[in-house]
Amino acid sequence: MTERSLLVVVLAAGEGTRMRSSLPKVLHRIAGFPMLTHVLRAATDAGANRIAVVVGPGRADVAEEARKVAPDAQVFVQAERRGTAHAVLAARAALAEPADDVLILYADTPLVRAETLLSLRAPLAAGVAVAALGFEATDPAGYGRLIVEGGELRAIREDREASPSERGITFCNGGLMALAGAQALRLLDGVRNDNAKGEYYLTDVVELAQAAGLGAAAVEAAPEEVVGVNSRVQLAEAEALLQRRLRRVAMEAGATLVAPDTVFFSADTRLGRDVVVEPHVVFGPGVTVADEVVIHAFSHLEGAVLARGVSIGPYARLRPGTRLDEGVRIGNFVETKAAHLEQGVKVNHLSYVGDAHVGADSNLGAGTITCNYDGYSKFRTEIGKGAFIGVHSALVAPVTIGAGAYVGTGSVITEDVPEDSLALARGRQVTKPGRAITMRARLAAARETGRG
Amino acid sequence: MTERSLLVVVLAAGEGTRMRSSLPKVLHRIAGFPMLTHVLRAATDAGANRIAVVVGPGRADVAEEARKVAPDAQVFVQAERRGTAHAVLAARAALAEPADDVLILYADTPLVRAETLLSLRAPLAAGVAVAALGFEATDPAGYGRLIVEGGELRAIREDREASPSERGITFCNGGLMALAGAQALRLLDGVRNDNAKGEYYLTDVVELAQAAGLGAAAVEAAPEEVVGVNSRVQLAEAEALLQRRLRRVAMEAGATLVAPDTVFFSADTRLGRDVVVEPHVVFGPGVTVADEVVIHAFSHLEGAVLARGVSIGPYARLRPGTRLDEGVRIGNFVETKAAHLEQGVKVNHLSYVGDAHVGADSNLGAGTITCNYDGYSKFRTEIGKGAFIGVHSALVAPVTIGAGAYVGTGSVITEDVPEDSLALARGRQVTKPGRAITMRARLAAARETGRG
Amino acid sequence: MTERSLLVVVLAAGEGTRMRSSLPKVLHRIAGFPMLTHVLRAATDAGANRIAVVVGPGRADVAEEARKVAPDAQVFVQAERRGTAHAVLAARAALAEPADDVLILYADTPLVRAETLLSLRAPLAAGVAVAALGFEATDPAGYGRLIVEGGELRAIREDREASPSERGITFCNGGLMALAGAQALRLLDGVRNDNAKGEYYLTDVVELAQAAGLGAAAVEAAPEEVVGVNSRVQLAEAEALLQRRLRRVAMEAGATLVAPDTVFFSADTRLGRDVVVEPHVVFGPGVTVADEVVIHAFSHLEGAVLARGVSIGPYARLRPGTRLDEGVRIGNFVETKAAHLEQGVKVNHLSYVGDAHVGADSNLGAGTITCNYDGYSKFRTEIGKGAFIGVHSALVAPVTIGAGAYVGTGSVITEDVPEDSLALARGRQVTKPGRAITMRARLAAARETGRG
Repeated sequence: MTERSLLVVVLAAGEGTRMRSSLPKVLHRIAGFPMLTHVLRAATDAGANRIAVVVGPGRADVAEEARKVAPDAQVFVQAERRGTAHAVLAARAALAEPADDVLILYADTPLVRAETLLSLRAPLAAGVAVAALGFEATDPAGYGRLIVEGGELRAIREDREASPSERGITFCNGGLMALAGAQALRLLDGVRNDNAKGEYYLTDVVELAQAAGLGAAAVEAAPEEVVGVNSRVQLAEAEALLQRRLRRVAMEAGATLVAPDTVFFSADTRLGRDVVVEPHVVFGPGVTVADEVVIHAFSHLEGAVLARGVSIGPYARLRPGTRLDEGVRIGNFVETKAAHLEQGVKVNHLSYVGDAHVGADSNLGAGTITCNYDGYSKFRTEIGKGAFIGVHSALVAPVTIGAGAYVGTGSVITEDVPEDSLALARGRQVTKPGRAITMRARLAAARETGRG
Repeated sequence: MTERSLLVVVLAAGEGTRMRSSLPKVLHRIAGFPMLTHVLRAATDAGANRIAVVVGPGRADVAEEARKVAPDAQVFVQAERRGTAHAVLAARAALAEPADDVLILYADTPLVRAETLLSLRAPLAAGVAVAALGFEATDPAGYGRLIVEGGELRAIREDREASPSERGITFCNGGLMALAGAQALRLLDGVRNDNAKGEYYLTDVVELAQAAGLGAAAVEAAPEEVVGVNSRVQLAEAEALLQRRLRRVAMEAGATLVAPDTVFFSADTRLGRDVVVEPHVVFGPGVTVADEVVIHAFSHLEGAVLARGVSIGPYARLRPGTRLDEGVRIGNFVETKAAHLEQGVKVNHLSYVGDAHVGADSNLGAGTITCNYDGYSKFRTEIGKGAFIGVHSALVAPVTIGAGAYVGTGSVITEDVPEDSLALARGRQVTKPGRAITMRARLAAARETGRG
Repeated sequence: MTERSLLVVVLAAGEGTRMRSSLPKVLHRIAGFPMLTHVLRAATDAGANRIAVVVGPGRADVAEEARKVAPDAQVFVQAERRGTAHAVLAARAALAEPADDVLILYADTPLVRAETLLSLRAPLAAGVAVAALGFEATDPAGYGRLIVEGGELRAIREDREASPSERGITFCNGGLMALAGAQALRLLDGVRNDNAKGEYYLTDVVELAQAAGLGAAAVEAAPEEVVGVNSRVQLAEAEALLQRRLRRVAMEAGATLVAPDTVFFSADTRLGRDVVVEPHVVFGPGVTVADEVVIHAFSHLEGAVLARGVSIGPYARLRPGTRLDEGVRIGNFVETKAAHLEQGVKVNHLSYVGDAHVGADSNLGAGTITCNYDGYSKFRTEIGKGAFIGVHSALVAPVTIGAGAYVGTGSVITEDVPEDSLALARGRQVTKPGRAITMRARLAAARETGRG
């Protein structure tokens, strides 16, 4: 890590009309978080001391989202759209304060990694004023070309202005740029709009720096890191690239993904060693999984912490606030929410455990439901250790089931059950011999007449 | 759209032995509908005034399926299999009636688009007698080559009869053809079977037309549009191609597909703007989704209409006849069928709502089940607006729950509940202190002895 | 099949540190079974009369897994890691006993097919002493090259020892080898470790055999058959290759896989003709599916036998011991385990049927749960034919429901129900007019004050 101070300017004012969305483009999500968030996290990880976010007019939502990740971010509004250099200059007040390095990032280029940003800053430490991030394009048509001579970046040439020989260049402009803080404003202010579109292009700072003898350099990144998102199709492509990266990280850290292409992570998912993830699993934000956990097929996790040796699913749905201690077993068609299940608890089938705390080694039978909502308020259910909750029980919160208590099958529990007590709340069985015969006759007749 | 009259002949007599199926090949489905249906819809969308379907002997099932989509279709039987021209001539009676244009389609070539059929008809309007649909093949080996000279289609050359230079041609025969109605029968009757297999090949009409000075043209289509299906592997490939097309259409219209490759549409699925579809979702036929709906992972929809702002899943299963009004929320492990849920209704967990109408803003607790079937007949459940149905309730239809009524947890409701009433139907809780201790001792002992 | 006797030596001592796992590498699974198991099954199918497994020190777990598949396998320990020839010689005692052919396989090369092993044995029958399995590499860098001259395999040259012209060879060493039993020990004992790493390389037997005038041959396999697994990423790749193979086999046998890439088989899954598998289905080990079964999306099957015409899912979870007779229908959010459902039984929603037998044509309503576990022991539920179990019923095992019996909605059945009887066990409905109004007022007030 460098000790040079860093200002990051994030351009987030794009309108994104091709998204056909009422949501601003940079708030569309990949791997569980807005694209803006990914870029801000990369900025922070690359050592940002200050962050400036340039948003479009009236985009309080974008500013608010930015501040969730970077609470001290300065937000600037680009009132008119007059080119990338003009957009950066919307943050003039931030640029006017001293910083060794300035990084210019795009909120719709969400796949750049912090390591790459550090390598983009490296030339500044070596004394050049401008560093541009490039990539090797399979098909360079349409991209600006990086004109590199003698190890120096001479210019960034727009595709339509490139000479025939320049068109053969496959090293293309990725958009992201690093500027020496001391020169940044002067260079940006030097950009002119005497071009076809009448816009101020950030790419012009390269030639300005070279003309002033300040030096410029190009740094190469993998093509996927500079992928920009302008449509839903491109959003899906960026999601796919990021998922591929996250899956590889998980596998290299010692998790088995039986079918990686069917597992979807959030950017913050953490998996331990010898975790097995079966096909078709979705991780929302905020999931941490310890070693030797098995996540069976068709599970959906969000905001959940799983301790060593836990087994969930298939068809387990863990919602935010779920905490499963060592060896807990959650079976099929089970939902948990804001629930802490201590060591060894089993909830094997068709249950809902919400706003609850369950003591170690308790067993909740199939069809156990915590009734945490009365239509107005939410209440908690407390179950002691070693309790046994019979099948088809409803626990009407607020309610406490004592340690070692036994709740009979089919009970609606509305009053606390003391430790080691047996609670029953159900009708007594009445059996009427032969009655099914007359019943069937009546029901069949009803069907004939069209109605009972 | 042209004003020329159009007869479409659909060849649907293929036996499909490579499918290894007791179902006729053309009734195998992609994107929720039989291949035959896709072709008939393309025909209709391309302006068909009349449709003739040629089926194999004894294939009443194919005829019946055809009439579901095209009720006025004429069905002809090809008694013997003697080549494509012979198959078309099975529809002689249809061809004998006047039509400006005749299109010949194949029920096992299901991916052709109506736009392409219109472009295939275009040369007829310009005066030529025959237009053949071609495609650029990456590897042309095995395909008939379209011999085009001076903008005219001279012949369609079978691969084995092609000269070395003709083998270099990559523009290949896709099979579909348009004939000028006035010439169709004469051309088809001119086809001879003096070839190795003794069959009547439709492709011969090109040379016949040229010999007669009537002109022939070739029209290019994307290779995927002329993909034919002869095996289950090819069926899966066609399905994949069509899904890719449907996903792209959905995204371009403004829906986010987080993981497009895991979402499966029916050909008639309609998604609004700013719809978000999480990974692993399956759409059966008949689904319409309005703007700003969120479909969480692992959901399965069929015959359902979702209004703006609805949220379903994960693990929501909407069956035919489901209608969800604005802002309805369906949670996990919930099934709906023939159910109309008005604005703001919530059914969050582990429920079955079938043959039901639920008034606005009602809340159905976890484990709510409508008992719509008595083993003989189906009955309806009516729930008024603002009702609250407690957890684990069974509503035994026919039954009406009035507006604002409150059904207690664990109740079996067999009688109507008036407006604003409270209904309970459950046992009272009995708690026996210390009893769990003796119970555990007894159960443990029973385990030891092998049986209680 | 040949009548030559066969010894197979399976090398299973690799440490697999790159797996980052506490499980030995060869016990990691693909398609439901340990890699070791796949190799042992291929060995058996290729006609092995004896099997020797070479494991690392202290690997009783590997030995135990091997004996599950090959009970008579001899297990040898390779105490030190000194090269592949050294590893084979750990099985010296097995090699010392007579065998016509010796095959040397790798437990981390799990995709080899028995047919390929048979073709690898073929040159031995023709009189050569060594046969090596090769494959055509797209990029041969890093692989040993098979030096073939005049139809004879002259040597296997390590990449770093290859001459420039040898580097151009793309026919590479897949590792697997066949040795004439009569020569095997002599050849292996002839291998020296006078190389950079000081290891004994199995590949040296080729030159030794040629020097001794015994002959050597190369046999080609598809590249995927010799894929080795050294990391979780490679494990996932091997899984993907095997799944592709299994899917193709299923489709060619007459099953429709709507979306093959989303269906995951075990190596032993058997599907009949005209089976339809919707997207997103997972098969664990031990599943057999008869003709004309429909498996709807999001189903998960393991250890289950499905008869003709069964329909399951979506969201059906069949666990081991499930047996579904003809025409049984299992619906959504239903789990079965150790359950035999006779012809025509329906369990359509939200149920758990475990340790049970259900007679023909019975109907289990939504929310039917068999209570098979009391916290100590498991008990069985017996349901006769033509029974009707009402919604939300709990059947407390051990319990018997007679044929034609009718269990009322919401009942907890603790006592046997005789044939044709009606059993009810629930509270009576009490309705309190207007009470919901005061209740709502009270609950709303409670929310205001923060607690009821």
